[in-house]
Amino acid sequence: MDRKITVIVPNLAESHREAIRDAAARNGCEVRFMANEDEDKAYVYASEIVFGHQPQIAKSSQCLRWLCTPFAGVDQLTKEDSFANRDAILTNSAGAYGVTISEHILMVLLALLRRDPEYRNIVRNKDWKRDLAIRSVYGSRITLLGTGDIGRKTAARLRVFRPKRITGVNRSGGNPDNLFDAILTRDRLGEALPGTDILVISLPGTRETYHMLDREKLALLPDGAVIINVGRGSVIDQEALKAELESGRLYAGLDVFETEPLPREDPLWDNPNVLITPHTAGNMTLPHTIDRIVEMFIEDLDSYCAGKPLQHTVIRERGY
Amino acid sequence: MDRKITVIVPNLAESHREAIRDAAARNGCEVRFMANEDEDKAYVYASEIVFGHQPQIAKSSQCLRWLCTPFAGVDQLTKEDSFANRDAILTNSAGAYGVTISEHILMVLLALLRRDPEYRNIVRNKDWKRDLAIRSVYGSRITLLGTGDIGRKTAARLRVFRPKRITGVNRSGGNPDNLFDAILTRDRLGEALPGTDILVISLPGTRETYHMLDREKLALLPDGAVIINVGRGSVIDQEALKAELESGRLYAGLDVFETEPLPREDPLWDNPNVLITPHTAGNMTLPHTIDRIVEMFIEDLDSYCAGKPLQHTVIRERGY
Repeated sequence: MDRKITVIVPNLAESHREAIRDAAARNGCEVRFMANEDEDKAYVYASEIVFGHQPQIAKSSQCLRWLCTPFAGVDQLTKEDSFANRDAILTNSAGAYGVTISEHILMVLLALLRRDPEYRNIVRNKDWKRDLAIRSVYGSRITLLGTGDIGRKTAARLRVFRPKRITGVNRSGGNPDNLFDAILTRDRLGEALPGTDILVISLPGTRETYHMLDREKLALLPDGAVIINVGRGSVIDQEALKAELESGRLYAGLDVFETEPLPREDPLWDNPNVLITPHTAGNMTLPHTIDRIVEMFIEDLDSYCAGKPLQHTVIRERGY
Repeated sequence: MDRKITVIVPNLAESHREAIRDAAARNGCEVRFMANEDEDKAYVYASEIVFGHQPQIAKSSQCLRWLCTPFAGVDQLTKEDSFANRDAILTNSAGAYGVTISEHILMVLLALLRRDPEYRNIVRNKDWKRDLAIRSVYGSRITLLGTGDIGRKTAARLRVFRPKRITGVNRSGGNPDNLFDAILTRDRLGEALPGTDILVISLPGTRETYHMLDREKLALLPDGAVIINVGRGSVIDQEALKAELESGRLYAGLDVFETEPLPREDPLWDNPNVLITPHTAGNMTLPHTIDRIVEMFIEDLDSYCAGKPLQHTVIRERGY
């Protein structure tokens, strides 16, 4: 009997479907593409493989042996009871988002340094004011908290703007591709913060990263420091950050929040020191991102059907 | 008798003044710093050297032998009657703006590709919509019209975002620092445009560059192309561009205009396909920019007083 694969991934082009169909065929699998599970529940819950971000299927399906999420973040899939079949493999698509998220980071960072939100207000009023004091990536001291695909691609892009230094902070203490001027392990984050003009966070949401930036850590940043968070909102104590932003001491570009959507009554929406984006940094409409997601799934599908280890396996206990 | 130097440059720090005073002293010059010429007209009009962007002094002073403008653009100083003393030397500060203008270009370009103006409207309404189809520098075809300091620094920064190719267009046909995948001379601009997703213009305003992008040239760009202009507004036929923007076919980030300030009644202000900035790309508040401007002036001051040729001389007939 053929293995059944359910694919519930938005924004697939016909070329992507074709590539997945070919891979399924050469591996003796049956594949169906759906907009959501309601299209064919019987097939979905008989599928051994699901390619999609579907926590509800993981939670109830007894047949599921491998879930591949097109997302990078897996915090909705790494709880104790996330999988009905506790031996199921979880893979993610970390590695597909570095290009789009590093472009987001550069856009937001430059906008904050160059006071673009204020300039857009000036332009909205059709005024011609041009003397706001701006800042530059050139000569700045940058700390990247998280040195995975996103951190590495961001470091490579920032390097050419000639910052004073780029420090990476990670678990292992390793310096991937020698992209960083210095590496600190996470327990030494506090040493980096007083000399940080720009802090970029790309950490996953895990027990270990919860409120890693708390009130005390935020207080170590120098006046005027800019924080960009594209990882998970839970990494920052949002109330403590809010106080720093309301006092005008820090600036932030926030794509992720402790509660999403950010509640309409949250005062963050109106804070002039914050550039908010509605979790769009890893926008899944970008063709390059989908290309990579599909490539990575097919690579792992070939391995799975050949009984080999998968490349993009998430260690559920670790959370990424 | 000591040579008199008048300095009328905004945003100088005390360290900059000190460096200029030292250079003046070692060259046997007297120097005065002013906010404007009215502070001491007698001294200004007896000055052999003026460091400032002062067309009115150039036009009337018989004593002026060298004007160094802290700007890069000299179109207000290269007219037939710009200098009362027709033998006066004009130098500019091209070379000081590459860092700040290339950061501006990246910010505006990423904002247009990522539909940031629309996202900011969404955020202003406290909505949580996140599925607008975005684009990327990755894989794009870029043409840089102008390969001076700004074009070169922009090419170096764009390169690391992995575009498909970067074509430079200039007068000489030379490929500075091998930064470009291909170089075309200006007369062949039309050959590059059909394969251009992103066009960045950093040309000076001269007779030769006037309306280089006219209706016919603009029509050669593919649908959806993005134009960034940080050079001079006169390089583009603004009415022809407006038609392309109003039809929704092209996008633009415009820092310069045929008339500045852009008149309040101009429909460009309200066009959703345009990101307008009020001639801020080369923002003179950035300390690095002022550092470079002052360094370059001092370098030329030493040469001037030693009777050597200056490094940053403008050929007035050529216009840059």
